This record gives sequence, C-alpha cells and structure tokens, in this order.
Amino acid sequence: MASIWKNQLTLSIFGESHGLAIGMTIDGIPAGEVVDMERLQAFLNRRAPGRTPWSTPRKETDIPEFLSGLKDGKTTGAPITAIIRNENTRSKDYVNLKRVPRPGHADFTAEVKYGGHQDNAGGGHFSGRLTAPLCIAGGIILQILARRGITVGAHIASIGAVQDQCFDPVQIDKSMLEAIADKDFPVLDDAAGVTMQGEVETAKRELDSVGGTIECAAIGLPPGLGDPIFDGMENRIASLAFGIPAVKGIEFGAGFAVSTMRGSLHNDAFCLDDDRVKTRTNHHGGILGGITSAMPLLFRVAIKPTPSIGRVQESINLETREAAALEIEGRHDPCIVPRAVPCIEAAAALAIYDAILETEGRRPCN
Amino acid sequence: MASIWKNQLTLSIFGESHGLAIGMTIDGIPAGEVVDMERLQAFLNRRAPGRTPWSTPRKETDIPEFLSGLKDGKTTGAPITAIIRNENTRSKDYVNLKRVPRPGHADFTAEVKYGGHQDNAGGGHFSGRLTAPLCIAGGIILQILARRGITVGAHIASIGAVQDQCFDPVQIDKSMLEAIADKDFPVLDDAAGVTMQGEVETAKRELDSVGGTIECAAIGLPPGLGDPIFDGMENRIASLAFGIPAVKGIEFGAGFAVSTMRGSLHNDAFCLDDDRVKTRTNHHGGILGGITSAMPLLFRVAIKPTPSIGRVQESINLETREAAALEIEGRHDPCIVPRAVPCIEAAAALAIYDAILETEGRRPCN
Amino acid sequence: MASIWKNQLTLSIFGESHGLAIGMTIDGIPAGEVVDMERLQAFLNRRAPGRTPWSTPRKETDIPEFLSGLKDGKTTGAPITAIIRNENTRSKDYVNLKRVPRPGHADFTAEVKYGGHQDNAGGGHFSGRLTAPLCIAGGIILQILARRGITVGAHIASIGAVQDQCFDPVQIDKSMLEAIADKDFPVLDDAAGVTMQGEVETAKRELDSVGGTIECAAIGLPPGLGDPIFDGMENRIASLAFGIPAVKGIEFGAGFAVSTMRGSLHNDAFCLDDDRVKTRTNHHGGILGGITSAMPLLFRVAIKPTPSIGRVQESINLETREAAALEIEGRHDPCIVPRAVPCIEAAAALAIYDAILETEGRRPCN
Amino acid sequence: MASIWKNQLTLSIFGESHGLAIGMTIDGIPAGEVVDMERLQAFLNRRAPGRTPWSTPRKETDIPEFLSGLKDGKTTGAPITAIIRNENTRSKDYVNLKRVPRPGHADFTAEVKYGGHQDNAGGGHFSGRLTAPLCIAGGIILQILARRGITVGAHIASIGAVQDQCFDPVQIDKSMLEAIADKDFPVLDDAAGVTMQGEVETAKRELDSVGGTIECAAIGLPPGLGDPIFDGMENRIASLAFGIPAVKGIEFGAGFAVSTMRGSLHNDAFCLDDDRVKTRTNHHGGILGGITSAMPLLFRVAIKPTPSIGRVQESINLETREAAALEIEGRHDPCIVPRAVPCIEAAAALAIYDAILETEGRRPCN
Repeated sequence: MASIWKNQLTLSIFGESHGLAIGMTIDGIPAGEVVDMERLQAFLNRRAPGRTPWSTPRKETDIPEFLSGLKDGKTTGAPITAIIRNENTRSKDYVNLKRVPRPGHADFTAEVKYGGHQDNAGGGHFSGRLTAPLCIAGGIILQILARRGITVGAHIASIGAVQDQCFDPVQIDKSMLEAIADKDFPVLDDAAGVTMQGEVETAKRELDSVGGTIECAAIGLPPGLGDPIFDGMENRIASLAFGIPAVKGIEFGAGFAVSTMRGSLHNDAFCLDDDRVKTRTNHHGGILGGITSAMPLLFRVAIKPTPSIGRVQESINLETREAAALEIEGRHDPCIVPRAVPCIEAAAALAIYDAILETEGRRPCN
Repeated sequence: MASIWKNQLTLSIFGESHGLAIGMTIDGIPAGEVVDMERLQAFLNRRAPGRTPWSTPRKETDIPEFLSGLKDGKTTGAPITAIIRNENTRSKDYVNLKRVPRPGHADFTAEVKYGGHQDNAGGGHFSGRLTAPLCIAGGIILQILARRGITVGAHIASIGAVQDQCFDPVQIDKSMLEAIADKDFPVLDDAAGVTMQGEVETAKRELDSVGGTIECAAIGLPPGLGDPIFDGMENRIASLAFGIPAVKGIEFGAGFAVSTMRGSLHNDAFCLDDDRVKTRTNHHGGILGGITSAMPLLFRVAIKPTPSIGRVQESINLETREAAALEIEGRHDPCIVPRAVPCIEAAAALAIYDAILETEGRRPCN
Repeated sequence: MASIWKNQLTLSIFGESHGLAIGMTIDGIPAGEVVDMERLQAFLNRRAPGRTPWSTPRKETDIPEFLSGLKDGKTTGAPITAIIRNENTRSKDYVNLKRVPRPGHADFTAEVKYGGHQDNAGGGHFSGRLTAPLCIAGGIILQILARRGITVGAHIASIGAVQDQCFDPVQIDKSMLEAIADKDFPVLDDAAGVTMQGEVETAKRELDSVGGTIECAAIGLPPGLGDPIFDGMENRIASLAFGIPAVKGIEFGAGFAVSTMRGSLHNDAFCLDDDRVKTRTNHHGGILGGITSAMPLLFRVAIKPTPSIGRVQESINLETREAAALEIEGRHDPCIVPRAVPCIEAAAALAIYDAILETEGRRPCN
Repeated sequence: MASIWKNQLTLSIFGESHGLAIGMTIDGIPAGEVVDMERLQAFLNRRAPGRTPWSTPRKETDIPEFLSGLKDGKTTGAPITAIIRNENTRSKDYVNLKRVPRPGHADFTAEVKYGGHQDNAGGGHFSGRLTAPLCIAGGIILQILARRGITVGAHIASIGAVQDQCFDPVQIDKSMLEAIADKDFPVLDDAAGVTMQGEVETAKRELDSVGGTIECAAIGLPPGLGDPIFDGMENRIASLAFGIPAVKGIEFGAGFAVSTMRGSLHNDAFCLDDDRVKTRTNHHGGILGGITSAMPLLFRVAIKPTPSIGRVQESINLETREAAALEIEGRHDPCIVPRAVPCIEAAAALAIYDAILETEGRRPCN
C-alpha cells in the first residue's frame, strides 16, 4: 500500500527513477473539471531541475503524457493517469551503491526490505523524482481549488541558518501567494533569498549540501473541513507531506513554539469581521480539532540536506561485511528545498480537496 | 472515517466525553496474544488524571470493560472491543459553550461541521478523554511488542522553557525506558522535572496553562519495517499522533534541526557492530526512506497548552453574533503533557506493530 | 479487517455469541439525522428469534444500548456505537465442538485460523447472532433513506422447493414493501407462505433444516449512484451481503437467468415516462455499469439450510484424529431464512446510503 | 474509488476503451517474484479477441508495456505498472451513443453520473476492454500461486441452454485445470463445446448475442485463508468478480441450489484422508465462515449476453427527449463468455493471493 494514498481521492504513484517511466493515477476527481495544460506545465516546471545555476544539470523534461481520464481538456470522471518517460539516466553511476549503501539514503533499508531485488538506480522508487507525479496530481487540484476561491502557496522559509520572513498568519493576501509562485527562488524577502543562494553555492563548492524549511499557507477555505481524531486536516496533510522524501518534520500553526506558550497567549480569541467568525491571532494555524476554522491554514516542514554529496563518506560493503569509503558519482542538487516548494503545495492541495469532496460529494461540473 | 485508523490493524475510537461511554475496537491482532490486565491497567493509570497534585480533580476510574475478543486472558482473533463508562460528568458546565465557543477548542469548528447537533459537553468526541481508548489499544500492543524484544518509551522533553535531557540517539537502554515508565513524572533528569512541575504550578496559580514537548523512542526494531512514499513509518506515526488532541507538530530524528545542517554532518555513517549494520550517529531517527534501519526510532511531538483556562477570554456569541467574554467553569489540567506521554507511546506502538504485521503476516501464537 | 466494512461509511461489527456483548460502530452518518428508537426496535424484532412457533426458543431481547453518537434522538456526527448484552447463553453446549467440528459450520476453519484460541461458544464471532449489529446500523439507515423517498424491502422468495411470487421488476409499490415488512412471515403470497411454514415444520420434526432464497428491492433511488469496476452497486451490496452467514449466492436483476437469454431479450429498452427515463423491462435490476438507473434495484440471495441440526452427523475428533459421531445439543432454527430478511434489507440500505454520501457529501441536516 | 481494489494488494485499473492507453498498477506484491512474460502473454491471449471465428474482428494486440516494478524479470517490491496502447479504434462509431443510450449498456447511467463529460467511445471506462489490465495483474499472480502449488482454473459451464459438465467438487485434478487452459474453447466436454459454438454462431447470424455461466475452481489452497464477516473469501472474490462487466450473479459451492437442500444433505461430513481433514462432499465450495477449508474452492458466475447487438433497438434521444430507434454500428462479440474465462481466473487469483499475504506477510523471495 506503500505508494497509494486513499481517502476520498486515491492517488497511486508508480515508477522508478531509472526505469521506463514514472507516473500517477488519481481517482475520485469529479467529471467536468477543466485542466489547463499550460498552467499545469508551469507548475511542474517549478519542481523540475535546472531553474537555478546550481541545481542538478540532469535535464528532465517532465512533460506528462495523459493516458486516461481527460477529454477535450476536462476530466471525464474516470481515473486520470499520466506518465513521464525517463530519459538521460546514467545507471552505471549506481551499480556500486547496492553493495555500499549511501549514508542518509534508503539504499540499506531497501536492501533489507526487498532482499536485493529493488531497482536502486537513481534511488529507484525512493527517488525524489517520484515527487513529479505528486505534482501532476497536485497541479490539477490547485486549478480546481483556485476556481473555488482557494489559494495554496508556499515559500522557502529558511535554508541553513538564513531565514525568510514568515507569512503573517492572520492576513495572507492571494496576490502575494501568486507572486511567490512566479519567482525563480520563492521567498518573501528577496534579499534573504540572495543570501540563501549564497549558502547553497558555498555548500556546493565544498562538495556538500544544505537543508531548510518550507512554509505553506492555504487561504479561502470554508470552515468545517476535516474530521476528528485520525482524519483531521493535520493527519491528512502529514500523511501526504511525509510522502515527500527529505521531509523530517511538520508543524501546524505556531507548531513547536506552542510548547513554550501559556494558554492565555496561545488561545486565539474569536471575533467577528463583517459577521464572519475570525480569530485575532492564528496560533492554531486554521485548524481546531482537526477541522478548518476558515482562518489561513498554515504549516511548515523541515527538509533535510540532500544526502548525495561529493565528499568521501564512511560506509560499509554489505557483501564483504567490511568498512568501505564511498564517493558518490553523478551530480546532485546541493539543496533540494526550492524544488520541494511546489511538492508541499501539491500535498496541501490534495488534503484540502479531499476534505472538500467528503463534505460536498462528487458531482459533475456543469 | 474520522475516528477509524485502518491499515493492517484497524482501530475504531468512539464515544463522547459526557456520553454513556467511550471505547475502542481493534481488529487485526492475531489470536493467542496474552493480555496482562494488571499491566494494562498500570499503563492506563499513567494517562489517568489525579496522579499529580495539580492535575484535574475529576476522578476517572478508567477501568476498561472488555466486551469481546479476549478469552482466558488471550486474544481470540476476533475484534477486541473495550469500553469505559463515563462517570462524574458535570454537563451543566458546558451548556454555554455551544453558543460561546472556547478559544483554542473545537467548539466553533464542530458547530459549523455538525450544524449544532454535536454533543459538546466536555469536548464531546473531541475531548482529550478519547485518548483513553487509544491507550487501551496501545497498552495491549506494547505487551505484544515487549515479547518480541521491542520497547517503546517516551518522556517529557520540555514544559514551557524547561528542558529535560534528550535520549542519546545511538544508545538507548531498555532498562532506562522501563524506569521512566515507572515515574510519576516521566523525565530523564528529575531535577529538571521538579522545575517543570514548578512551571505548571505557577501557571495553575495564574489561572493559566502551559505546553511542552514529548520525545519518544522505540528500540529493538528489526530493519525493513515500513514502506516508501505514503506508508513510511513517519506517515504512519504522524497519522496516529495527530489523532491526539493538542499535538501541533512532529519531527523524526534530528527533526527541524536538519534544516540547519550540512549533508556531511547530517548523513549518518554506516558501520558494523558485531556484523550488524549500524550508524555512528542517528540523525535519521531510525527511519530511511520510510523504512526502519534498526537504529532507535526517535521522534518528538509538540503539545499545546491546555486551551481550557480559568481566565476570562474574548469570544463571541454565535447566536447573537456579538462579542462575549467567556469564563470557563469546571476544573482542567494546567498542563496536559505528562498525561500525553503514554498516548504518544500508544501511537508509536500501533504504527510499529502495524508494520510488523504487514511484514510477518497474521498467524496465531502457539 | 475482517469485521469492518469501509467505504464512505465505516461499519465495525464486534462481539462473540456467548461473550459479554455484541455490537457495532458506524462512522460517517451526518449529524442531525433523527433515529426513531421504537421504529428501530420494531425493525430489530423482525430479526429476533421467537416470532414463529418453530424458531429457536432461546430468548434474545436484542435491545441495543447506544453508547455514543446520538443526542436528543439525533445523530451527533460522531461515531455511533451500540451494544447488546448477551444473556441466556448456555456455553456448556459447545465445549465439545472445538474438538469435533460441526459439519457446515466455521468450527474447523476457525480452529485452523485462530490456532484454538477462538471463542467458539455459540459460533463465537461467526454466529448468526452477529447480524443483530448489522441490523442496528441498517435500521438507522433505512429511516434516513425513507426520509429521502427511498424504500428498501425484502421477502422470502422460496423455502425449499416452495416459491413465493416475485416482485414485478418494473412496478414495485412502496405500500406493498411496507406491508410485507409488517408480516410475521414476510411473503407476497400468504398461501405460499403457509406451505413454506409446513416445509419448515416438517424439517424440524425430522431433526433437519431447510434453506431458501430472499428477494430484495429498493425503490425511489436517484440515477447515478455507484461507480465503475470495483465500486459498483453490485460490488458494494455483494461485499456486505456475504457478511451475513449462510449467504452462498447473490444475483442482480435477471441474475443467473441472463445466462440463457439472448441480448435482444435481455437488453431493456429505454423509454420516457413523464420525461423520466425508464426501461420497459428490468433485467438489469436497476444497475448498469455498476451505476443505478433509477429503475427498481433488485437482487436475490441464496440462504443455506441451518447447519446445526439434531441428527447424528459424521465428523472427526481433531485431537485424537479419529472419526467421531456428532450430535449437536442446544436448540436451533430449522430455517434461518425468515430472520435473514431484515439483514438483507440492512445490507442493501448500507450500500445505497454509502453511494448517496459519495455523491452528495456529508453535510449536517438542518 | 471506483477503479481501485484495496486490501493487502491494491489494484488500480485505468483507461478508456478509445483513449490513449489502458493499464493497471498493482502494489503489494513482494520483491523477487519471477514474472515469465511469455506465459503472461499466453494468459492474456486467452482474453484477447480473435481466437474464435465469430469473435469481434477488432484486432487488439494487448501486449503490455511494463513501466515499473520489474527488473531482470523479477518484481522489485515497488508498484508494478503496465499499460496497453489502444489501437484500431473507430470512435466515430460511437458519436451517436451519448445522445441515444444503448440498451443494456452504461451509456445512460454514465451520462447521469458524469454529466456528459465521460468518454463514452467504445464504452469508455466501462468497456469490457478494461478487463485486460485485470488479466495482467491476475496473470502475474497466477504464476506466483503456481509456485506455491495453487492452481486456479475456469471453464465455460454453459452458453444459453447448453451445459458443460461440472467440476467434480471433491476431486479436481491439477492437470485437468491446465488442460482446459490450453483449449481454444475452454470446456470440459468438447462435444458440448461444439454445440455451444453452434449456439453462438446462430445468435450471430440472427444479429443477436447470448449469455452463459463460468465455473471456477482453485485447488491446493491451505486451510485458514480469509476472514469472518466482511472479509471472507466470498466477499473478496465477489467484490472483484463484479468488477468484470457483464457479471450479474455469483454463487459459491452448491450456490443457489442450497436453497432447496435440507441441512442433512447440505452439511459436508468431515473425514480424514492421510491425516488431512477433508469433507466427503463439497457443498460449501471450500469456504466455511468465509475461511478456506482446503477443499477445492468453487464458484460460478452468470454472464449476460453482450448488450451490443446488430438489431434495431428501442431507445430514446436524451437531447430531444423523444423515442429513437438505435442501430449499433461496429462489430461486437456475439458471446463474451469464452473471453471472460481468464478474467474470472484473474479475479479468483487476486482474492486468494491477497488472503495469503494477510496470513504470511510480505517478505522478499530469496
């Protein structure tokens, strides 16, 4: 069940990094929803490598071929399947890694789990490349949400020790979210962005990599989405977000900072704004009891530094059972954070639309 | 689907805080597993109120009645259902809260979702009391895991600004985990514990509450548990942990700290220890690619301060659509963190056993 | 996952025949739905034993106690749990059956599956008694469906070789369905019913039992419910109906008779009736491509003869591995068909309402 | 969720008959299982059209392209995706059918459900062509089962009024099942087969079609597979079998005939054969309480006559809301039963292997 997320929507992700193709099937999207392919491609391009001088030079065109579920630019109601053929793979770079697992990678755990039968080339099914199918699904859904007045947007909140500004948790402007999406380096504070890029370039020069955090917001949500206990918005988003390799933490609203707060500070006072119920602050991140409050839904994720680095690393040879020095060949992003931004948006969009379908049902668009 | 978690195991949690009873059904536990009732009750008592001078004086006996699935102290293979009758409820304390939602509570979002039909007394189905059924399931599974050499233990990592020591991520001793479980105030550093309790008492005196963090470890795990993408150990644990009210964040291994790390620091070097594969450090928290590495599985959660506080708070009257000052009656824990510790252990145990059943199947014990 | 059915609705059935209690949790019913307890009890009484002179004299009161999910006679939106305490059990009748499995029963297969740990008294979790919880859920949903103008009704179509009339597949009257539900012996043709009862009494006198068939109809359905391939109305109904012990076959519309039909006969011509699309015949049983056509939904199930009979039967002793003659003590229904009628209605109601929720979503009633 | 079956295995079927491709993803098959492509193709060819003189002359090559999950002829443990490109489609034959729905088809119900957005060409997602992906999954699993000593085989039990012999429910020989699989026209009694083919040719000549039944057996099963109530072998098989268009009924063991049996006849006496527990008769069809008994698992399905026939049929024009005579162009099988035989085997294989994985877990082959 590993690679299938199933609730109101079912998203099946398949493929291996150096196999024939990667792809996804999404089932449960009502019939008649328009999919603007240009806009979808623009979204996918935000994830694709090669946008920044320092990202991996491996060229992936990442143009999805839709095999089913669309007709005349609209969803048919049947499952939507799209694939991306893999090109420009260099599997010979990976022959050694099954014997000598890369630190920080799934090489060793996959070896145990799959008994040596896994396709480990390029990370196989564990590759960050498998986020492209997630973005196909998410990109379609972001368009559907936009037509309902819901905007989802994320930015790089930090790289290494360099911090971007945070979203104002109470006032998030739709045009601001759209503006970030258009940036090559999606930050609120472009000056901080320049410093971040310097951090990445330094890491690259030193044959190293660096991690960061991403902050995501969704605005325009109706109140009442999500369910108690195991099917709250936090559970849904987390179960999708941890599907993105490199995510090691997630926090909603004030997040880990709640641990140092008093209740009198943390509790968000209710008020009325044009007869709409709002809260004066938004430490709850738009979710109370798992259910949306209609305040901006806010969360942050932690992204680990790319494990593939150019330095010699200490590992072991699983065959000879001896220590082994590992020097990873191939070229890798020194920082995966910028490319993870649209992936996080995709995960959030899926969880939100899933909750909407549960509330509103699945009727065709007219 | 709100209150049912379904993978290899299915856990259904039901009940409302001031209804007739709360309870759980767990399906999927193989036949023949011994359930030691005394030990289970001891585990449940760790969650029950009244262990510390400042916890809520509401007395909940929390003695489960098993309706099915057990015979002669062993599981029969059929679904296990246990209920806890509610006593000592004072629903009149809550009559006002439907009209005037409590800040930080699910009162408002439940009002929207359920159109006023929810049973909000005592928080209804959103109450922290619903973690007792989670602990019944978790307590049974912790016994099963222990027979397999797996120990799960958690401690209060911080309350407010006061920090406990952290687990050594590489060396965690079984006896240490067991020792913490026996403590009334589960911390590694008892001196820090005393300071923490001071924090709680201060908050209580000031009609306020305080949050904290919990760190959880699982040792003795085999490598190879969990699956890629949406069914990794992180996804499974997170989807359960966010089922505990008040959890607002979760991080695995080095967690959010990975964001400031270089890959050369973060990547855990592989080494051999008596021919067993280990890592020299454990920033990955025992999970690589969603799959266990056999290193200690480590995660932390953030717990928000109890939203029910004695101070007058700003809210609104949903009927009159006017501002309203709210003074919550009833008595509430000024800090929920200590009682959340076994709940976190229960969530971890469920996720781990679920992954074991997937790998090993479901055969009766002999 | 055995005892949990999960789609839009989740129904968890628990309990063992001679355990403390049996019961059910149903999650996913929107808030605000009225549950008329008298009407529910009347429905449950149709399943309860003792209505006919020849049914088992074991008195089960079968009055459910609702533990959660209802308030002021309406659903709260939280999971609904109800239990029925077991009384009047005579477990000593069953001590021998674990060693010497009853032909036609699950004794042997449960012994293998659960390694001897199952609670086999009274059939344990495999008992027909476990259909009472199904009827609690179904009885609630039948009331919800009725408020939407949907009526579900079933009758005994045959017992042994004695046949009742069939529903007219095109014209089924709501008042006729309601009239059958009020009968002690639910048949269309009461004269046939008298003959059937004679068959049962003869079987009983001869220490034997007899099987039969049940025909079920649902009228008032909107078109468009259900989904293609694995989630059609046939799949949903079948997956629930085979949850009723003794069901060994199910057929929709013309059913097995389609095998001898030509397409020109079988295809139901479309026509208009007051601008509503209908079919002149209804061999499709109201389902085309898994999706409702708004014609009466029709299906039939085969019910095997009660396996517990008074005659000496050939079995084996699983301990001594020798042939053993078995004489079952205790008193059993010579024909389970009449009591299975409301169970089939319950299964149909669940499947239909599940498909409605998928289409319409889950909003609170006002 | 329509097109995804999820239990231990998850099977996602996608595609539309005249779209770019059809295909499937199956997740949950352990790593290291050999897939013999020639044997798989031979299995798929049994479903493909054109084997008999009277089957549809539309040539579908039906050669799957595996995109993921296989390496060096073995499963990798990651999801397996295969697609079949659609060729030789003549969508212009179908332009009229959205307005004037074909009797016996899903045209009308899909029109309501999908609001006119469905891709109805060639039946779209409702086409019998979508059973090819089912057979890809089933064909892989049949090979895995064979290596465990489990053989699944089906034959045409009847076409129109012409009956084949039945399987001997107690003694089914593996070599006999294999022999049927090799036949162009899979019957036990070839003389009956000749008569059946005459029936089909007559129907074809008369621009008509004809239905039939299929009987399926699985031998070599261990006892103890399957679960009580909603996850028994009957439920699992039925939920898959009704995923095959044209199936309108299913019965296990003695099936509908149980309705006319006395218990003393129906109950299968237990006996010992070389210390293995068997039953003298097999009216239970190898399933008691949902769980396998190790006797041959036996079931039959009813297949309706192909709805697409050459005769003029009565329908309506959904646009003009007037009666309309419909003459279907294109060429169609006058009898779908022979091609449905491997589909039924595939459904049975999936359900059986799913139950095995639940019992044995999911470990890599060595």
